[in-house]
Amino acid sequence: MRFVDLIDKKKKGYEHTKEEIQFIVDSLMNGRAEDYQVSAWLMAVYFKGMTLDETANLTQAIINSGEVIDLSPLRENCPHVADKHSTGGVGDKITLILIPLLAACGVPIAKLSGRGLGHTGGTIDKLESIPGFKTDLDVEELINKVKDVGLAIGAQTKRLTPADGKLYALRDVTATVDSIPLIASSVVSKKIASGADYVVLDVKYGSGAFIKTPEKACELAQWMVDIAQKLGKKFHAVITSMEQPLGRAVGNAIEVIESVEFLKGNMTPDIKELTYEMAALTLVSLQKAYSKEDAYAKIQTAIDTGSALECFKELIKSQGGNPLVVDNYRLFPQPAYAERIIAEKDGFISNIDAYKTAYACKLLGAGRERKTDPIDYSAGIYLNKIYGEPVSQGDVVATLYANDEGKLSLAREFLKEAFSYADYEQPHRNLIYRII
Amino acid sequence: MRFVDLIDKKKKGYEHTKEEIQFIVDSLMNGRAEDYQVSAWLMAVYFKGMTLDETANLTQAIINSGEVIDLSPLRENCPHVADKHSTGGVGDKITLILIPLLAACGVPIAKLSGRGLGHTGGTIDKLESIPGFKTDLDVEELINKVKDVGLAIGAQTKRLTPADGKLYALRDVTATVDSIPLIASSVVSKKIASGADYVVLDVKYGSGAFIKTPEKACELAQWMVDIAQKLGKKFHAVITSMEQPLGRAVGNAIEVIESVEFLKGNMTPDIKELTYEMAALTLVSLQKAYSKEDAYAKIQTAIDTGSALECFKELIKSQGGNPLVVDNYRLFPQPAYAERIIAEKDGFISNIDAYKTAYACKLLGAGRERKTDPIDYSAGIYLNKIYGEPVSQGDVVATLYANDEGKLSLAREFLKEAFSYADYEQPHRNLIYRII
Repeated sequence: MRFVDLIDKKKKGYEHTKEEIQFIVDSLMNGRAEDYQVSAWLMAVYFKGMTLDETANLTQAIINSGEVIDLSPLRENCPHVADKHSTGGVGDKITLILIPLLAACGVPIAKLSGRGLGHTGGTIDKLESIPGFKTDLDVEELINKVKDVGLAIGAQTKRLTPADGKLYALRDVTATVDSIPLIASSVVSKKIASGADYVVLDVKYGSGAFIKTPEKACELAQWMVDIAQKLGKKFHAVITSMEQPLGRAVGNAIEVIESVEFLKGNMTPDIKELTYEMAALTLVSLQKAYSKEDAYAKIQTAIDTGSALECFKELIKSQGGNPLVVDNYRLFPQPAYAERIIAEKDGFISNIDAYKTAYACKLLGAGRERKTDPIDYSAGIYLNKIYGEPVSQGDVVATLYANDEGKLSLAREFLKEAFSYADYEQPHRNLIYRII
Repeated sequence: MRFVDLIDKKKKGYEHTKEEIQFIVDSLMNGRAEDYQVSAWLMAVYFKGMTLDETANLTQAIINSGEVIDLSPLRENCPHVADKHSTGGVGDKITLILIPLLAACGVPIAKLSGRGLGHTGGTIDKLESIPGFKTDLDVEELINKVKDVGLAIGAQTKRLTPADGKLYALRDVTATVDSIPLIASSVVSKKIASGADYVVLDVKYGSGAFIKTPEKACELAQWMVDIAQKLGKKFHAVITSMEQPLGRAVGNAIEVIESVEFLKGNMTPDIKELTYEMAALTLVSLQKAYSKEDAYAKIQTAIDTGSALECFKELIKSQGGNPLVVDNYRLFPQPAYAERIIAEKDGFISNIDAYKTAYACKLLGAGRERKTDPIDYSAGIYLNKIYGEPVSQGDVVATLYANDEGKLSLAREFLKEAFSYADYEQPHRNLIYRII
């Protein structure tokens, strides 16, 4: 088999056999294929696509390229181990809330998450804003912590799906990121290698997501669910809007605080809609609830009794963090400066552009450009007013936090532009577009 | 400007500006773009194409990447310097005939040609089968020889269009060779950098050519003529069939002998049709003839008076070869073995497959796989019978020459398969499909 012939085959739109896909991934890993051949193949895939079988085979080959975590020691109490994944959005702190909530409902969680590369940090960055919180866990530590306290979150390791790392690095610099089969195989391979049997996916679309339309998000979601099924795993996908930030907080420490508030019962409706839906799908799928209604009741009980909040405290303690942050937010890193944005007229908030909000947040220092850049955990944005809420001239609509006055004034202009106002009451906005 | 953004732009089907094309070629040459980015861009070009403006800009940028030969010292006698190019075919010895013929008609020729990579040698290889013939000429030598004897042929130098060399090397291993704008810019850039004002192209289609249909050949030809025009040069293209070998000889020394025979007046009709047409186009375009009829008369005179043959002898002498080969073919390298193929029934030759003939010729040792492989100049095939000729059972239809009996018997089977017979007289076959 010659790599150039496989490029030619894909270029002409033919389907690769399982052996050919394995050869492609093997050649990538053992260096027998040159990067310039792999990138030409990726561009051919971008134009000609892949069938479901090809994509499932690619996913399996990527999984086989590295370690696969064996979570069977956790299957004593719950026959199937769950995981969650989001394609990424602005103010997306759902993992921070969903994980302790599911743990409180009896679902063991051993989750691997990524660091952020973009406008705000990833889940791992957000957790690291809790003083002392340690995320560099090896597999044994991860599993032992779940056995002890029911949940654990570690940073993704390079030993899992190394072929995905190589492919992604090439796609990033050759404009071949936006290919449905390539995205789907990347996500699904990582999730399966992480050891889960069941995964609930949050596929986002809109100005703050890399997918712009709900149709495209549905297409990607369907692919991921179908590939997982071909590989013997059960996935669900929730398709959600990312036109506006999720909740009121955008940043790192500030998002942890909003998550804690949620677990205390102070919920914004959008976060509640999404978290309850994802939790219910998981509980029903793992037979921890008889029906969606039963699941909702169990979730509500976990909030009302404080058991979900307690699970979050246990998580923090177990991973070396200071659990007192939950009751004293001043223990988080504190920003030196704050600045308020004031409504210039009476009316209703008709839109807060997610992309512009994220961009402002990055200017404040909450995100990173390169993997090695530091993150300012205390920087961020609080949306005092969100979609649909009435405002009077002079009301504070948002507050920016930073450690640098220059960054504040730059970010303020972008954030101002994110807000749109209307004179009339706004219609109800559904966050969830579809469930697949 | 970032290379990844230019890949994305082409991927989405947008047109590159002149500055972007220059950036792409510059990045390729100075190493600022990685090969994996260039190959992804090439694949995007394969799928999305390029406009005529983009292709002309690419051609100019490739020309600018290296040396451009200044042939102005030759413009004293003839205001415009001519060149000729063929996309390559089996038994294609037209350059060997056309060049002395044009020189005899008063057109100065300073031609650079390639070595062959494939089933038979290139023009340079064929000429090197003449004992002593030297083709490694620098520009000054090339021009001085043309001044002395009216014509010279040198081997292509790497100092011309180095960007084309780099691009072609990448295309070859990433299945992006077969793109009309990439082929067109490659050919036209080389011709313009060689210094010519006027070029007559022979664009071949059929089993022995890399283009399979006349429609595709016309498309490529039109692109090359149009790009040249945008860059201020006059090109003509003759679209010709390469379903069957050209003439009777396929190999190296054996093709030189057939060329000499042609210049002596012993012509196969297909070579005559093509050579006269290309010569006439050149003579009329360079105002060395008033009309096509006038051109044909001048060409016939150059043959009849022996002046074309004399020019060929001068060429050989000028470049260190032994001009006596023209009258004594035994001075060429001689093959140790010969084998005849016999007609198995009465009838007419209805086809000789060009690809199969070429493949047999390569098996005999007349071609090369890698640039460094040696060529057996004496190996080759003589077609005793060609298309349309009547045969009786037992007639010799072809003769194979080689220096290895094993190669002979292998090649014989392939060459036998190349021949098709019919019971009835065959219709006249036109070699030229169109002139652009």
